Amino acid sequence: MNRTILVTNDDGLYSSGLIASYEALKDLGEVFVVAPAVQKSGVGRSISLMEPIRVSEVSWNGIKAYAVDGTPTDSVIIGIHEIIGEVPDLVVSGVNLGENISTEAILTSGTVGAAFEAATQGSAAISISLEVSDIDKFEFVYKELDFELCKKILKSLAEKIFKNELPHGVDVLNVNVPAEFKGEVEFTRLARKLYKTRIDIRRDPRGRKYFWIDGEEIEDAEEGTDLHAIRKGRISITPLTLDNTSRIDIGMINRWFYDR
Amino acid sequence: MNRTILVTNDDGLYSSGLIASYEALKDLGEVFVVAPAVQKSGVGRSISLMEPIRVSEVSWNGIKAYAVDGTPTDSVIIGIHEIIGEVPDLVVSGVNLGENISTEAILTSGTVGAAFEAATQGSAAISISLEVSDIDKFEFVYKELDFELCKKILKSLAEKIFKNELPHGVDVLNVNVPAEFKGEVEFTRLARKLYKTRIDIRRDPRGRKYFWIDGEEIEDAEEGTDLHAIRKGRISITPLTLDNTSRIDIGMINRWFYDR
Repeated sequence: MNRTILVTNDDGLYSSGLIASYEALKDLGEVFVVAPAVQKSGVGRSISLMEPIRVSEVSWNGIKAYAVDGTPTDSVIIGIHEIIGEVPDLVVSGVNLGENISTEAILTSGTVGAAFEAATQGSAAISISLEVSDIDKFEFVYKELDFELCKKILKSLAEKIFKNELPHGVDVLNVNVPAEFKGEVEFTRLARKLYKTRIDIRRDPRGRKYFWIDGEEIEDAEEGTDLHAIRKGRISITPLTLDNTSRIDIGMINRWFYDR
Repeated sequence: MNRTILVTNDDGLYSSGLIASYEALKDLGEVFVVAPAVQKSGVGRSISLMEPIRVSEVSWNGIKAYAVDGTPTDSVIIGIHEIIGEVPDLVVSGVNLGENISTEAILTSGTVGAAFEAATQGSAAISISLEVSDIDKFEFVYKELDFELCKKILKSLAEKIFKNELPHGVDVLNVNVPAEFKGEVEFTRLARKLYKTRIDIRRDPRGRKYFWIDGEEIEDAEEGTDLHAIRKGRISITPLTLDNTSRIDIGMINRWFYDR
């Protein structure tokens, strides 16, 4: 049976992490590579509603790939509805250069955003990220890092999904691979927060103020969270849902509202 | 006790919906208005990591407000950390022109994205949207619509939050107000999907192809969902969580992974 797999990311088409995913998956089915033409980190599940989208066919590592002038989510939509023409068996987003950890990253990461879009479209979906140093996250996305572990876990998860499908209630598997692996795989829940937000104020050459959003990582990590697992050098796999409805009982919120 | 309230949106500072929120809340505390300078629909919880952010102080409906050259999430971060200088008692995002319904809108909407950021920063948060015709969503955000019902529900929820705080486990209240109100308020869960995605292919004046992402609304709506409530002409209030961890049992996913 011929599987179809869509590979995308948010670091852009020429990221070495995207090549790693392609290599891990190319023997498992027909792999389509459709990714933003340039770096789109931090755009979450942004979708281009106000701008039209351009797509270029490019030569990429010996195959034809598609460079999308849009977001990771746009790439998934164009990949499924225009390039493949049907919902693939699997969409993989990554390997992202830099971990995607905690509820903060889940909602702001373009890598995870693309995986959420894929799940909405009806595909199984994996987002995968490699912990790297801060400078490697954005400056050197074309650098060759050691992706062997990422490739191994990705291939093994894809095979598992093809064999058994994702468990009911799981829309996306969010995988984080530590920079220094200590030999364990842990299924985790999302940490609540990763950063303590900070604003960096500067002045441009004309004396006008501008701001950078910045932050330092929080120190405490609860056991069982993705943050804790990565700090322990474990591969973290977090099963995600698309559904942000609160777990609160509807009766309870009714009582809250009506002051009963 | 002097409450602080931050008001933002994704339609931009000059949207009539933002003015409606300001008017609804101005007697409840000190209201800071910090919003994107221009329309930022569909950007979800995008955060500007690669671009610096500019902020202009502007005269707005008789008060000083802040126009942010960035996303709704950027506006919340700048508003809290730079303008107010502390976490406010409440952040309100909207009134958005156009409903924000289903898991799709929750993850792609700039309105809801801003509310999620506010919750991460530790504030109570409400996102509020008014169902309007398609053309009113984007073309006429400065048009005077009838916001009386939005203002009433918003003020009542803000007062409730100031009195009792949000129930534990609720990070954001996502409110949708129907175009034609039939007289009920319903606490709802998110519908899974709202749109059937479609791509519109066009050619520019130079003959080059480009794409628009489009979609038509799905017909079926399950009872208990936000989509169902709005179609019945009810005000829908969905309690949201920031936590996308799947509800699946961790033991179950371990068995799935290890094939036990």
